[in-house]
Amino acid sequence: MKVLIVFAHPEPQSLNGSLYQVTINELKSQGHQVRTSDLYAMKWKSEIDRADFPSYPVDARLRPAFASAEAYASNTLTDDVKAEQEKLLWADTVIFHFPLWWYSMPAILKGWFERVYSLGFAYGKGEYNEKHWGDRYGEGLFVNKRAMLVVTVGSWPEHYSARGIAGPIDDVLYPVNHGLLFYAGFQVLPSHVVYRADKMAETTFEREAEALREKLRALETTKTISYRAQNAGDYEIPTLTLKPGLEGDSTATGFSLHIDKSN
Amino acid sequence: MKVLIVFAHPEPQSLNGSLYQVTINELKSQGHQVRTSDLYAMKWKSEIDRADFPSYPVDARLRPAFASAEAYASNTLTDDVKAEQEKLLWADTVIFHFPLWWYSMPAILKGWFERVYSLGFAYGKGEYNEKHWGDRYGEGLFVNKRAMLVVTVGSWPEHYSARGIAGPIDDVLYPVNHGLLFYAGFQVLPSHVVYRADKMAETTFEREAEALREKLRALETTKTISYRAQNAGDYEIPTLTLKPGLEGDSTATGFSLHIDKSN
Repeated sequence: MKVLIVFAHPEPQSLNGSLYQVTINELKSQGHQVRTSDLYAMKWKSEIDRADFPSYPVDARLRPAFASAEAYASNTLTDDVKAEQEKLLWADTVIFHFPLWWYSMPAILKGWFERVYSLGFAYGKGEYNEKHWGDRYGEGLFVNKRAMLVVTVGSWPEHYSARGIAGPIDDVLYPVNHGLLFYAGFQVLPSHVVYRADKMAETTFEREAEALREKLRALETTKTISYRAQNAGDYEIPTLTLKPGLEGDSTATGFSLHIDKSN
Repeated sequence: MKVLIVFAHPEPQSLNGSLYQVTINELKSQGHQVRTSDLYAMKWKSEIDRADFPSYPVDARLRPAFASAEAYASNTLTDDVKAEQEKLLWADTVIFHFPLWWYSMPAILKGWFERVYSLGFAYGKGEYNEKHWGDRYGEGLFVNKRAMLVVTVGSWPEHYSARGIAGPIDDVLYPVNHGLLFYAGFQVLPSHVVYRADKMAETTFEREAEALREKLRALETTKTISYRAQNAGDYEIPTLTLKPGLEGDSTATGFSLHIDKSN
């Protein structure tokens, strides 16, 4: 495999940083090709702004998505963004290592997606008609690639259980797994989540490292999350609402509707 | 009222920027005191990293939350963070204006929370025992303050409806409204969401501006979202799972469980 690992923690010695090293070492020892994007070490620019589009007219109203489309099409994106796009094209598997801060990604990783996912590169492809609403959610650039999150969480697994106050972890990660990865075509593996990250003893760490290695050995064979493909018949177009009859009770709501449990 | 408006869009001429001006003007015309944090204009630093804690030992493993607690307690946070904390203490109402990018806040605003929400300032208060698990989710520093999101969205309201592919908008915004605002004690108003932001005609804009002004006139009286307070009896402690019998069917899951519909 060709694996890109994107890492977003300021401290290499953190639990997340240690697990990142576990991933690198395990994949290399399996003979895979590994490339990395250590965002803090790279001093990655987090915000998308006018500086991302050097050719954009300085007096024109900045529309970030349209500006990214123009810059991508004319090959005038900044070098840091181009380098990440090239890595994404190279990889057949992408692993994201990050701590869950305030129920989502660190800002620096959010900004990586905002800047690297140019319109026309990562999305905005395909026809828009009555049967097909763009190549997205199951189609798109990354359709033959796999992706997985490796996430460290400070608090307890119970808080992220079905009835936990933080919400189910699969719902908390849905905007990333479904909204960013599946959206652009990735086949998304179940996330690997490590809880109570700040309190971990050395002995527990070794157990966690081994649990992660096991997941990594199964990267190519693990069943991916069966999100419903947007254009495969489950949705009304263009409202993109789940068709009546699916998920039985029409009062059911929430992110989990968009996983086909029969699949 | 004393209103802080936090704005996170790189383009003042964007729809979001125009609505931000509507908010400033309407609140001032009502006689309220208004302060602002225009994050892009301030060149706000998005990432939390070691530079946020100038007194932290350079050779010590960086634990961001603990480092923020030490820096807050010793008054050694950076001036930009101190200024934002002072504004939060001053305000009785905080309004966040931002575009929904990839189903969450722009990176620059996510980083504002990561950097300004120091441990010991915005959270980490109160006792932890069998009946009370910290002053959070309904208690805490901001308990007598109100907060509201004003969010622009590129795509259609149907996509964010109960059965829409993006998930219900209230679920999409739950990590912000519940996980960041209610968590730190804010009473959270229903979000004001404007869809199809990139396609808006001038005439539509005037209607949207007036809809926003109406919400702003009712800031003090609008019923806030009835999220369940963590320590008020609805949750098992310390697992923080919703007690059996609440929300009827114990198979129910998802963010919406944490709103008390009877309230």
